[in-house]
Amino acid sequence: MNRQRIQLVQAALQRRKLDAMLITQPANRHYLSGYTAVDHSIQETAGVLLLPAKGKPFLLTDSRFILQAEEEAAGCEVELYRKGLYPHLKQLLPQLSIHRLAFESHYFLHSSVMTMEKMTDAIGVTLVPLTGLVERMRAVKNEDEIRLLKQSVRLNERVFQLVYNTIEPGMTELEIALALELTMRELGAEGPSFDTIVAFGTNAARPHAVPTDRVLRSGDIVLIDMGLVLHGYCSDMTRTFVAGKPRSTYLERLRIVRKAQLAAIAAIKDGAICRDVDQAARTIISNAGYGEFFGHGLGHGVGLAVHEDPSLSPRCRKKLRAGMVVTIEPGIYLPEWGGIRLENMAVVRQGGCEILNKDTTGLDR
Amino acid sequence: MNRQRIQLVQAALQRRKLDAMLITQPANRHYLSGYTAVDHSIQETAGVLLLPAKGKPFLLTDSRFILQAEEEAAGCEVELYRKGLYPHLKQLLPQLSIHRLAFESHYFLHSSVMTMEKMTDAIGVTLVPLTGLVERMRAVKNEDEIRLLKQSVRLNERVFQLVYNTIEPGMTELEIALALELTMRELGAEGPSFDTIVAFGTNAARPHAVPTDRVLRSGDIVLIDMGLVLHGYCSDMTRTFVAGKPRSTYLERLRIVRKAQLAAIAAIKDGAICRDVDQAARTIISNAGYGEFFGHGLGHGVGLAVHEDPSLSPRCRKKLRAGMVVTIEPGIYLPEWGGIRLENMAVVRQGGCEILNKDTTGLDR
Repeated sequence: MNRQRIQLVQAALQRRKLDAMLITQPANRHYLSGYTAVDHSIQETAGVLLLPAKGKPFLLTDSRFILQAEEEAAGCEVELYRKGLYPHLKQLLPQLSIHRLAFESHYFLHSSVMTMEKMTDAIGVTLVPLTGLVERMRAVKNEDEIRLLKQSVRLNERVFQLVYNTIEPGMTELEIALALELTMRELGAEGPSFDTIVAFGTNAARPHAVPTDRVLRSGDIVLIDMGLVLHGYCSDMTRTFVAGKPRSTYLERLRIVRKAQLAAIAAIKDGAICRDVDQAARTIISNAGYGEFFGHGLGHGVGLAVHEDPSLSPRCRKKLRAGMVVTIEPGIYLPEWGGIRLENMAVVRQGGCEILNKDTTGLDR
Repeated sequence: MNRQRIQLVQAALQRRKLDAMLITQPANRHYLSGYTAVDHSIQETAGVLLLPAKGKPFLLTDSRFILQAEEEAAGCEVELYRKGLYPHLKQLLPQLSIHRLAFESHYFLHSSVMTMEKMTDAIGVTLVPLTGLVERMRAVKNEDEIRLLKQSVRLNERVFQLVYNTIEPGMTELEIALALELTMRELGAEGPSFDTIVAFGTNAARPHAVPTDRVLRSGDIVLIDMGLVLHGYCSDMTRTFVAGKPRSTYLERLRIVRKAQLAAIAAIKDGAICRDVDQAARTIISNAGYGEFFGHGLGHGVGLAVHEDPSLSPRCRKKLRAGMVVTIEPGIYLPEWGGIRLENMAVVRQGGCEILNKDTTGLDR
């Protein structure tokens, strides 16, 4: 467990007059306890962290994960629930004199809250929904975390470059995606941080394309969006290029997307408003006449999760803070034609930002 | 979309005097609409199905997925929400005269329900939590689905056998896991249905072991739990064996687990109570003195999701019905020694069951 982070959460609980908090969101659980297990789905937790406002945290899990939990969550009381989480809490909460219990409302199913409420009602415990407490802490990285993120980005670029050099007409999207994911693991990544996107030609018009057995032909656009997990930290990068000689329309649109990306990068600094950064890129794409073909937000935070706070979206009024790590990924998508997206990661600094990427494939034509 | 399934849900809505239902659970959405997109996480939906009690369903999604949705969800009205799901619903629900709206309480975040409630309160719509309606339909497969599940199992076994024949001392858990996942994709699977488990020696004592760089030595136990997705349908199989010559303790424990598995298989039939099937296996393991080392339930349903209804757990009082497809996976796990789990899939029939597996590796010693 991370004592300093635990103490920050405990101080926040004390300020809110809460006796404890249940941490169910897997990256939050990892961030505070060191326990790295992943949930198969939200309906099947690998364990729950019960963090009292004072004293030792408890990591509650089942027999499938007990050995891993004991090994990784040093400093936590690891307890096995044999008959389910709620019967276990029904015993434990009164022992710890917990009366007001916070839970992560944004990572707790509605039906689970109803089930838990029956139990807490029976023992006189009040449930308090809480949202984003640990996420706000996680959004700002310290230098150790930034170093790990850089390592993740560096390995991701190495994997990209190795596979990029083998790409040639005749290969399929699936084949390239597979080669990328295989190379990630062979070079020591825990795995991809999301399902790798490889899209040729008109498939690149789908921002979340799923690789198919479509065959690459000379002149096709190739869009690759890939990331990996290394020592728990995620990377995320998109490159777009053409197999063979690009046409002038492609180069024109590429320059617009790149210009939008650079404008956003210039707008990033401690104190900048998220939606202003999005707007810096969006204005350039709109002025070039492609506003309606850039349908998604500009970027998102990256850390233990590949999508986390902050959100660089047209609707986000929050401020960037030094130490936040974000993607900058403008795009243009035309259904009959294809798409271009360029994505780098940056750490927010005082007065500016630092780009984590070194790879320049397809950026500088 | 699947008209017959849609009509069954609509009839259920009419009986409950509900005007419509929001389908958010990805496998349910797929089952009803044909739309195969996966959600990156529960916090980032790839789309929501709004199914009125009468008339055409609506598939609501964002710009990232709109092309895929239009292609796959033929028969649904596909609509793009530009400003988010709730603003879109605020316009659409009154147009469709929807007053009582059901939602999937077991796949809706507590905080999302609170956000949605503000919107529905403002337009006089009542939210009704509903749980398991589509899951109960999905649990019973028709013969077309059983055929697809058999294909998935067959391919999974082929992958296992190909890699099994290459396993030798000196290989690592990660290497074998990677070879399995690569072979799955090369032979046409969409991907693994869950993170492949390969565990040697004492690592096999963790039912949800994560593959490491541990090196296989002669005499080690090897536990492999693997599954794949083919045409949307999942498989799930576990084999345990020894690299080299097994010791007598191993063979003794293996026979107990296998005997437990066969006892459970003999108990499966239309009308059997889930926990009685679990008990058939558990009794044999307990009588042999290993009761406390079999900590998980006996099995689970498999279909579009790798874990779905029914649950063959000691607490489930529901009845098996013909057409359900379940895993039977008893195990013994001893922290200092290792573990043995054997897992096959079976379809429940009148008076018995049909085992979907043909592979017998490690089962018959």
